[in-house]
This record gives sequence, C-alpha cells and structure tokens, in this order.
Amino acid sequence: MTNNIKALLSQMTLEEKADLCSGKDFWNLKGIERLGIPSIMVTDGPHGLRKQNLGADHLGLFDSVPATCFPSAAGMASSWDRKLIQKVGVALGEECQAEDVAVLLGPGANIKRSPLCGRNFEYFSEDPYLSSEMAANHIKGVQSQGVGTSLKHFAANNQEHRRMSTDAIVDDRTFREIYLASFEGAVKQSQPWTVMCSYNKVNGEFASENNYLLNEILKEEWGFEGFVVSDWGAVNERDVALANGLELEMPASKGIGENKVIEAVQNGTLSEEKLDAAVERILRIIFKAVEEKKENATYDKEAHHQLARETARESMVLLKNKDSILPLKKEGNIAVIGEFAKAPRYQGGGSSHIKPTKLENIVEEIEKTAGESVNVTYAQGYYRDKDAIDEDLIEEAKVVASHADTVILFAGLPDRYESEGYDREHLHIPENQKRLIEAIADVNPNIVVVLSNGSPIEMPWLDKVKGLLEGYLGGQALGGAIADILFGDANPSGKLAETFPKQLSDNPSYLFFPGDGDRVEYREGIFVGYRYYDTKNVEPLFPFGYGLSYTTFEYSNLTVSSNEIKDTDSLTVTVNVKNTGAVAGKEVVQLYVRDVESSVSRPNKEIKGFEKVELQPGEEKTTSFILDKRSFAYYNTELKDWHVESGEFEILVGKSSKEIVLTEKVLVESTVELPFTVNRNTTVGDLLVNPKVAPLAKELLVKAQEGSPFAAAGEEQGDFSEMMEAMMKYMPLRALSNFSDGNFTEEKLQDMIQQLNDIQKKQVTN
Amino acid sequence: MTNNIKALLSQMTLEEKADLCSGKDFWNLKGIERLGIPSIMVTDGPHGLRKQNLGADHLGLFDSVPATCFPSAAGMASSWDRKLIQKVGVALGEECQAEDVAVLLGPGANIKRSPLCGRNFEYFSEDPYLSSEMAANHIKGVQSQGVGTSLKHFAANNQEHRRMSTDAIVDDRTFREIYLASFEGAVKQSQPWTVMCSYNKVNGEFASENNYLLNEILKEEWGFEGFVVSDWGAVNERDVALANGLELEMPASKGIGENKVIEAVQNGTLSEEKLDAAVERILRIIFKAVEEKKENATYDKEAHHQLARETARESMVLLKNKDSILPLKKEGNIAVIGEFAKAPRYQGGGSSHIKPTKLENIVEEIEKTAGESVNVTYAQGYYRDKDAIDEDLIEEAKVVASHADTVILFAGLPDRYESEGYDREHLHIPENQKRLIEAIADVNPNIVVVLSNGSPIEMPWLDKVKGLLEGYLGGQALGGAIADILFGDANPSGKLAETFPKQLSDNPSYLFFPGDGDRVEYREGIFVGYRYYDTKNVEPLFPFGYGLSYTTFEYSNLTVSSNEIKDTDSLTVTVNVKNTGAVAGKEVVQLYVRDVESSVSRPNKEIKGFEKVELQPGEEKTTSFILDKRSFAYYNTELKDWHVESGEFEILVGKSSKEIVLTEKVLVESTVELPFTVNRNTTVGDLLVNPKVAPLAKELLVKAQEGSPFAAAGEEQGDFSEMMEAMMKYMPLRALSNFSDGNFTEEKLQDMIQQLNDIQKKQVTN
Repeated sequence: MTNNIKALLSQMTLEEKADLCSGKDFWNLKGIERLGIPSIMVTDGPHGLRKQNLGADHLGLFDSVPATCFPSAAGMASSWDRKLIQKVGVALGEECQAEDVAVLLGPGANIKRSPLCGRNFEYFSEDPYLSSEMAANHIKGVQSQGVGTSLKHFAANNQEHRRMSTDAIVDDRTFREIYLASFEGAVKQSQPWTVMCSYNKVNGEFASENNYLLNEILKEEWGFEGFVVSDWGAVNERDVALANGLELEMPASKGIGENKVIEAVQNGTLSEEKLDAAVERILRIIFKAVEEKKENATYDKEAHHQLARETARESMVLLKNKDSILPLKKEGNIAVIGEFAKAPRYQGGGSSHIKPTKLENIVEEIEKTAGESVNVTYAQGYYRDKDAIDEDLIEEAKVVASHADTVILFAGLPDRYESEGYDREHLHIPENQKRLIEAIADVNPNIVVVLSNGSPIEMPWLDKVKGLLEGYLGGQALGGAIADILFGDANPSGKLAETFPKQLSDNPSYLFFPGDGDRVEYREGIFVGYRYYDTKNVEPLFPFGYGLSYTTFEYSNLTVSSNEIKDTDSLTVTVNVKNTGAVAGKEVVQLYVRDVESSVSRPNKEIKGFEKVELQPGEEKTTSFILDKRSFAYYNTELKDWHVESGEFEILVGKSSKEIVLTEKVLVESTVELPFTVNRNTTVGDLLVNPKVAPLAKELLVKAQEGSPFAAAGEEQGDFSEMMEAMMKYMPLRALSNFSDGNFTEEKLQDMIQQLNDIQKKQVTN
Repeated sequence: MTNNIKALLSQMTLEEKADLCSGKDFWNLKGIERLGIPSIMVTDGPHGLRKQNLGADHLGLFDSVPATCFPSAAGMASSWDRKLIQKVGVALGEECQAEDVAVLLGPGANIKRSPLCGRNFEYFSEDPYLSSEMAANHIKGVQSQGVGTSLKHFAANNQEHRRMSTDAIVDDRTFREIYLASFEGAVKQSQPWTVMCSYNKVNGEFASENNYLLNEILKEEWGFEGFVVSDWGAVNERDVALANGLELEMPASKGIGENKVIEAVQNGTLSEEKLDAAVERILRIIFKAVEEKKENATYDKEAHHQLARETARESMVLLKNKDSILPLKKEGNIAVIGEFAKAPRYQGGGSSHIKPTKLENIVEEIEKTAGESVNVTYAQGYYRDKDAIDEDLIEEAKVVASHADTVILFAGLPDRYESEGYDREHLHIPENQKRLIEAIADVNPNIVVVLSNGSPIEMPWLDKVKGLLEGYLGGQALGGAIADILFGDANPSGKLAETFPKQLSDNPSYLFFPGDGDRVEYREGIFVGYRYYDTKNVEPLFPFGYGLSYTTFEYSNLTVSSNEIKDTDSLTVTVNVKNTGAVAGKEVVQLYVRDVESSVSRPNKEIKGFEKVELQPGEEKTTSFILDKRSFAYYNTELKDWHVESGEFEILVGKSSKEIVLTEKVLVESTVELPFTVNRNTTVGDLLVNPKVAPLAKELLVKAQEGSPFAAAGEEQGDFSEMMEAMMKYMPLRALSNFSDGNFTEEKLQDMIQQLNDIQKKQVTN
C-alpha cells in the first residue's frame, strides 16, 4: 500500500493535494474520483455513534441515527476495567461498520483539571495514567473492528470557557507529566488512526499550528503514524497549520483553506514536501479504512444494550452505605422520588449527544428487579427543567416518603448544568433538588440518593442520607444497572477516577480557572487532582480511587522483586487480595509510588498501576504489577527527559489514594548523571555535596578564604553557628571576593572554576 | 550643594569615581581626602543599632556597641500604629547620631510570602499596604534626625533558602500589586536615603543588575532620589551592576569591583555618564549626612528603654482569652513556667542582632507588676537550647503548676529555629515545649501561654489553654510589657499583621516554596496571605487583622462621601467607633475594598486603610479614610498601569479580615478605556459586549452567517440552546468561515475586521 500511495501522490496536482487536506462537508473527507480515492466519513463519539440523519440540520447536532448509548467516559473510567472498555470499543466499532463510518471521533483524553469543565463527562480522569489506560483500551477495541478513532482534544483543552481563543500556559514539566502523559500512553499503546487537535492555544501557539505539539512530540517522539485532524473550526491559518503538522482541516472551508495552502506552496512559504507528507498520512488512513471496511455489516442491538447495562453496573460508584442500607431487601415499601427516575439524565450535551437505540425506564427497572414483594411508589419531587422549589411537589414527595421503608431519591445535574460549550460556575445541584433531599430527610431517615451527573457536585446534605450511589451518566441501560446494584443483583465495584472536593474552592485550579481573558495559567502545575489534595493536606469529600462494595477485601503479602534496582531495571510487585465477605465482588487494586525525598517538588504519591480483580467469597488472588523507569521518574526539563533521582521510593498498595494498606520500600539508583557545570554563581554548598568535585572544592575553598573574616569569626559564632553555616552554604563563589580583603581576585575565581570543571571532565574520560 | 557636587565630580579622575562606588571596608564608604569627601559609616538595623565594636571580628556580627533593642518589625507592625513606629524611628536616629552612624540599614519591606522565611521577623506583613505604611513611618522617624535609612531588600527576596542564587519568578501583576507595592509606598512617602538591592535574581536578572527594577521602576517611575546599595555580597559583575542602576557595592571588594568599572569605562561597555550619575547620587547622600550630622549627640537610654516598653505593649497580640482569664487579678498564686521567662528570646538572629542597653527579666517584671498580694513561683519546664523532653523538668513544673491559681507558660521559637540565613521547614515549636503545655494542662486548666517568636507557629495544643498572648520578639523591654498586659496595666491592642494558618500546608506558597533548585516560582500570584485564605475559603487559625482587647468596641454609621464616583475622584469614608466596655483601649479600624465583579481574578478583599483609635470607656470617635484610584485598582499588564474596572465595589469596615462589621457600596466608573483591537481571533461574544462595536458587529455577523448551518439549526436547538449560545459567544471571527459554506471568505473577514476597527477610530476622533 505504501507504494501505491507514493504512486498516487505522484499523480496528484497541487490543487488535488490541497483539496485532500480540507473536508468535503461537515462529516466527510474529500475523495478524488479520477484517482480512485474515496471519500470517507467520520462522526462524533465517543460513548456512541452520532451519525447525522440525512435531511437533518447541517450540523448534525440534533438528529442522528439510533446507536447504543454507553455510559460516558467519566463513568467508564470509574470501572477501572481495561477489558470492559475494550469490549465497549469493539461494540462501537461494529456500529460504525454497520453505519459506514470510517472514524469515530473519540476518545477524549483531556485531564480533569477542574470539576467545572463543561466537558468533563467526556473525559476519563484527573490522573494521566488511568486516563491513558482507558483511552488506549477504547482505541484498541474500536480499531480492532477496522474503524479508526480520533484521540482528542490534543492538548491542554481543559475548559470550555473561551475554548477557541484561550491560551493555556503550562510549564513543560507539568505538560509532560500530566496533560501530555494522558495522550502519550494511548498513542504509544494503541496508535489511534487520527488525533484531533484542540481549539485552544498552548503556550502562545494554537494547537492547530503547534509544531512542538503536533510534529516534535506527537509524531517524532511518540511515533504517531496517523493524521491530525482539526477540531471542528480549530484552524486559524490553514497554511500555517499544515506547515506545523495539522494534516486535515474539518469541517469543510469550501475552498478557503485549500486556496491558502495552494498559495503558500506557490509563494514558497510552505514546502510541497510538507504537503506531500500530509497527504500521504491522510491517504494511508483512507485506504486503511477502505481495506478494513466490512460490507453489509450489522450489529446485535440487544447484545449491545446488555453490554451498556454491564458497563453501567461496573461504572457506578457506591460512595456511602451507612448501616448497610444497601443492598435493599426485595420486600416492603420503597419510594422512588425525583423526576430523574422517570426522565433520566444518561448522557451529556454537545457533540457526543446521541440518539439511543432504546432507553430503560428506571422506575420500571426497579419494579422488575425488586419483584412482587416490593411495593414501589413514585413522586416527582421537582421539575427537572427548573431550579425553583415547588412546594407542592415536595409535600407530595414527603407524603410518599413517609409511608416507605426506604427512599430512593434521584438527583443530579440537568443538561443545562453541564455541557460541551461552557463550564459550570459552581458545584451545586439545583436548589429544588437540594431542598427535596432535606425535606425527605425530615420524614424518613432511610434515604439512598442516586446521582446522575458527569462531574463532581458539592453535597452539603450528605449527612442526611444513608446511601449514595454515584451513577454518573449511565447510558441507555442505566435503569437496569441502578436496579441491579440497589438490590444486590450486582455488587458495586466502581472507584472514583477523580477527587470529589468538599467545596469548589478546594480544587487546585480554583484561583486560576478559567483564567483572565484569553490566558489561562496552569499555576497549580503538577498538583492536579489527588496529587494536590494529598500533598497539600486538603481533606476531600471522597478521594480518588474510592468506592465501596457489598463485600470486604483484605490485602496481604506485598512483595517486590528487589529492594534495590537501577532505573533501567524493571520491578515486579505482587500483592494478595482476598474476598473476606459473603458475596462475590470486584476490587480495584491500586499501586501508588512515592519518592521519599526529592530535590524537586513531587506529589505525595502517584498511581502507577491498577488491576480490577474479581473474587468469590473466600477466594484469594495474587495481583502483579511491573514498574519501570517511568514509574519512578519525573520529567526533567534540563535533560528534556524523564529522570529518576537516586534514592528511596515507597510502593504503596491501597484501596484509594487516601487508604493505603500496604507499603514496601525500594532503592532506585539512577544511571543518568545530571550535568553539573561550575560557574561564578555556583554555591559553596552545591560544590560540597557533589561527590565528584567536593574534595578539590574543599581544598580550593580553604585557600580562597585565607584571611577571610568568616574564617576569623569562626570561633566567635556561638548561637549563630547554624546561620554562619547556612550563609556559607548558599554563598556563590564570586561573593567570596567581598569577604577576602581583596585576595580572591577575578583571576583566582576563574581559575577555581576551571579546575572544578576540569576535574569532572577527567573523571568522565577515566 | 548640587553645584558643589557637579564641581566636585568634574575634578574627579575615573579611578576616584570608580573608587567611590565600592565600600572602603565592611561598614564604611570611601572618602577622597584630596577633594574633601569624607567617609561615612552605615550599620545594620532596623530595630536597633548594630555598630561594630572596634577590635571585634571583621564581620561585626558578634560584638557591637550597646543600643536600645526595640521589638522586631513583625511585632512593630502588629501595633498598626504609624506614630509609634515614627517615634521608634526618631529614637533610632538619635542613637545613630550619637554613634556617628550616617545610615541605618533598614527597614525591611519584603512581603511575608511564607511563614517559613527565616527572616520574617525583620519584615512587617503579608500585606503591601500595611507593610509600606510601617516602612514609610520608620523611615520618616529615622531620617527626621538627619540619619539615612536603607529600605531593603529590593526585591522579591522572600526566602533565605539559596537567597544568593535563587531566581524569583514573579508575574508582573503580582510583582506590582504585592511585592513592589510594599516598597513603592515607602519610597514615595518617605524618600529613604538609600535602597538596598537584594541578593536574588528577579525574573532572570540579579536584583543588583536589574535595570527594570533599579532604574525604570525605582528611580524613573517612583522618583527615588538616593542611591542603591548592594546587600552585602550581592554584586555579581560590578560593571554590569553599575550600568543597571546599582550605585554602591558593599562590602569592600578591595579593588576588584573598582577595576571592573574602570575597565568597562575604558572599553566603552559602560558609559562615563552612567558612572557620573552614580557618583553624583552617592555624593549627594554623603554630603547630606555631613550637613545633618549633629556633633556630640547623645541620647537618653532610659527614655528609649521606656519607648521600647511602650512599643512592645502595643505590638503584642492577645489571641485567646477564654473565660476572660486575662487580665489577671493581682492576688493569689501564679506559676511562671518555661525557661523563656528567665532567658527570653527578644530579638532575631543575623545582621539585625544587637546588644541591648539592658534587658528586663520577665519573672522580676511580673513580680513587680503583680505586687505583694501575688505569690509567684517559677519552674523551668524545658531546656531552651534543646528539643528533647526532660521529664524531670516537666514533673517539677507540674508540681509548681498544680499549686497555682493560674499558670503563665512561656513558649516559642528558640534562636536556632528562625534566623537570617536559612528558612524553617515546619511551624512546630520544640517538642519539649509542646509536651510541657500538654502536661501542665493535665494539672491546671488556667493556662495563659505567652509566645516569643518571629513568625507563626502551629498550635495543636490551643484547645488546652485559656489565654494566649503573641509576644513576637519584644525587644529589651518585653518583660515589663508582658507584665503590663497580663495584669491589665495595659490593654492589649495589637492586631496580627499576618495570617496564622492552622497548618503549614494551608499557606498559599506551600507547594512552591522555596522552589526547585535556583528557581522559585510565585505561582500563588496575588493570592498572598489573607488574599488567599479569604478567596480560597481556607479557615485560618487566626486571621489577618485579628487581636482581642480587654474592652469592647462597637461600630456604627459607616458613610461614604458618594455612592458613585469616577476613578479620578477621591472618596471619603467615615465610621464611628465606640468603646462600650469598662476600660480604656485602642482599636484598629480596618477598611477593606472588594471588587464585586471583575473580569480579572481579584482577591475577595484588600485592605486600603486603617487607623488606630484610642478610646476611653463610653467614648466614641469618628474615623475617616480617603480612598483614591489606587484603592480600587488592579495592575493591568496590558496598560502597564493601575486600572479600575467600572462597576460596583464594597467598602468593608471590620475588626479583622474575617470579621467585617459594616458594609457600604460604591459605583466606580473608569475614565480609562482599555484598548480593543479587533482581529481574526476576536470572539463574537467580545464584540457583542463592547458598546462601541456591538451595533455594527451585530449587523455584520448576520450578514456573515447568511446560509450558515448555525442559523438554519436555530429552531431545532431545544435543550441545547445554552450550548449553541456559548459556542457562538466563544467563536473567533475566522472560524465563521468553517460554518459558511464557503461564503465567508478571507476577504470578507478582513473587511469586517477593518470596519470594526474603523468605527472605533471614528468614535475617538468624534
């Protein structure tokens, strides 16, 4: 095929090449009939297919062909289940094949910097490792079906506010460790066919015109083989974008972009080689799609619906279960309260919004699962599309609740509260829901709240309820999944992929989100999510990795393959997990790494491994993890590489970022030496702790200080010895001249510097 | 004199000029005998005079002539008393005259970014307004006596860690609003004879070589007329420093610096005009010192001691007074516990450390003040110079405490815990003191803790004590001051000039202090001190501005001279304060301003005025404040000027930053229009909110969107109307082309931009 593409390319005119680099319309690429290059279709995703219905609006936003609506990414990530995500990907791929869609526009691997981001429900996590694992497996699944993906939105697109003009200012270490890492793992593991660049600027350049991002990092460093497509409307100057690594402009600009490319080539501001390379990347994907196209493909709607239900069950997180109120017994009177129970919120708004093949009714599913011995009553409680409190609805709900043994109260965020396109400004649920919870708590202490929302909320009412199930946006089969969990037909196993803060202002980005004007500075740096809460001692409402089960698990026998390794070695960690309760269940074993002492700021801990383990009652399994250099490294901006600082690390195994149950220690020795060049401002202290120069430095320093008042004052220090020591430690070599009575001349200083650098070179040559 | 200096200058050789720009030795400038230019002496300060004793060590650190030791700046600032600080300044000036010292090296106006900074005790506050007011009045006092000051350490020197090599990275808005503002007020109000540049780099350049800092801001913008002296050893390259605004190198480099200057002039890399200007500034101060020299000056040691006692009384802050345990009755059994009572810590370590003229004994002062009806017993409790718990001392203290009606327990930070030269790494008091407090609490519930420390500590034991007096570093008369307050001979009136956090990690700089390597990024930006705690909803242990009294004050009748002003107007605010208790007392009336809504991030509130008011029982006074543009402004980096955003502001009057008792509103209208230039990436939303372009923009946008799918989709939006609205609001003009079916060409875009910019110009010309 490579040869064919080269041959095709050689036959193309400049105009045809430029043509291929901009879309035909909203959802289709251009083809070139005379060369047999077909037009392929891409459509929105990623938790379902949104293929525009013919005859609908031109944007395809408001009517699409039915497709299975899986839980959105926020929920899917809470499953922490790689295989499950892959299965969902396979199903999505099948649906794409059936609908003749070549590329599904997803998944999204942006990091949840703030819970306010309107699009968080489409993203996986606040942690780059978890996020990239989820994205990688989503991609693997879809692409196994001969359908491409578009890993998006690359990069630093962590808010909707002014998303098309804002400039994300991220320091390189933070960018690498947090925001890029989330994409990096997915690209390296799964080679998405395409990557979608984001709307925003990154450190001054539009993502669509960002050579560092699109060429240097994505293609050269990470080896990405596909093409980069613009987010819809993300192209600023088409020719500049192409020169900097953006292959495909979407949607069509109907000649405007194409002409800019042609002119740029003709003017010589864009080399035809660059254009050729772009076209080649696009052609490779087009023909890949053609080759892998399955004719007359169909899919099993019911099987996909059942997969959606399984996924929803695995995605929901049990956050509170006081007095073991859950699982509910299948008897007695149950009140179901809240309009969300009848008109559920099961997906988010915006480009990912799809038309489900069917939609489960939560109340009916509860009745079905509860069986005949349960009497289910319902009260609306509030109007879903309003914030205002309706006292009549509340009174009615109180009456219903007062006759029930248990109340299942449905609450969460309505569509207008979170959506693509804009961010939230607070973490409240609507006032009428809050009031409802409080009112019901006055008449019935046995309340289980089930939440539908794409991102954390504040819960000032938490103490008033016994049970809390975070349902996220559960997809079309959420009703059954909720019923399964509430009555114990399924044992909840979801874990939070993000921290729930007690209050919005606890979030690390709070003072700097969404930025001033068109500038958003990521000032919290690497301290995103639990990296912040844990390091800054801010107590969360619910920590990252947290989630309850109907059974209990015990951890034992944490082992490491060695207590001393080099950074080039890998380390195997094993731990036993046992189901010590009465029902089968799944546990997410989480492995965190802490650098015990570091010369650079590091988070208290970072997750570097996780496994979801299914265990029957009494069953025990051994889980193992392999850690490598990256598991211990930080990104060193001087080296422009990942670097492990020699020293002690802790291997922490736990049930959440806050609940570490077992700890081991390992010494990691770096095989990389950081450059150390002595100059006039090198401090005395830095010389004395560097083993390569310290002996010579000591000798030279004694000479340099001959006659120094510091030396003379030595014996009089008394109480001030610590101060004198510190002053000397922090003193740059050049400042010795001020304390030398004129003896330590510039020549002597330069000679000292020379000697100290020379001795290092000698050691290297040895 | 100006003429004489010009004349002198014209007679000086290049060598003589260069000579004058480096010190003669550690404490003296050079003179030039043949031209009658005398050598003047400078010495450390600022809370007392540290003049080297002849024959002592060359650094003059360990023996100096006796001088009155006033409370250190951290304490003095807590008095919030401008006149008192000025009186202290006058006394310091008198002592300088008596000791033939021309310039006292202080005050320090660095902002307390972190409570860890080892030198915080020498600085005033976390707030730039309070800090600059204190510094200004200190300078006024000293200089009124014909003695110069050296406002230090300019600038962004907010830590001791690697202070000679670290690079403080501060964004310009933060620099202006917080760190520079603290110096700005003092320079503009009081014209210090000299300013001392700091050791560190600021945004990449050494403060000693920083043209922006030393020339543009300090001299050109603020009109500083004196000379800049290097902190001792802060010169990196002498000629570069001179070229960038550093006039005087200290201490002597004995020809090294001088020769670099001479060579640079000879090589042409430094203009002789710059050297002349530097020499002129130095000569002006030298001759000012000569002119104002008072021959045979002496000072009244006892009067100064009494002033030190008054200052200490006004500086101490009563932080807790449960059950009104204070003031103590002058009867019964009182246990005084803790070695600090006999060996008090009354000043900090480092260059400010002086030899007091005398030192009050706390136990004796307590006995004296308590009178004959009180039986005072003493127990040491701990060894001041150790951290280890001594159970014998504790047992002995428990016995003493168990027989007392009340325990006065002395605790705090020993010298080794805080000093110039290094920073703290935690906020603990020594373990033996903590254990002592807990042990005493077991045997006696009536504990008053008196603290000696230069900066906040954590107080996990706070619930165990009834009374808490923050004594700071109270100077040589701290004993009497403490006794006066404890027994009610003085009514405490100090208020915290800094926030006490519950735990170190609550501090805004926590994750970014003291930086990685030689780079410290001020990532918390303008959110320093209470600006952070208030805005981020972090509950402090004790808030900024907090302090108790033995009487009560009531506020009433807050008035503003107008509810609507222009930013060029001034606003008069008055408020009545009444002493509603039984004893005379002083209240610090604090005025804060809040910008109710702002397009840029702003703190919840900022202090813009304060007055200390003395009131007899039942007495009421009216306090008035005048606010000007600066009181409402933020620093706009685009304008490079202070800017008030039109809108509503709240005038908040309170007893601390957390306890606002009265509020008024005022509308401030800006007379300055921010530049608004339309370009291809200007968003639709920005056009529509700008009154000057909105009408035309609407018209042009309708035209541009003819045939757009957005327009067509308008009626189908349903649930997504908010999303569609947001998408349009954030859309840059150039992106319209992707949604125009090729109609909105680059030419039409450029034409639209042109029209929108033209209409603004027309309006300006009208």
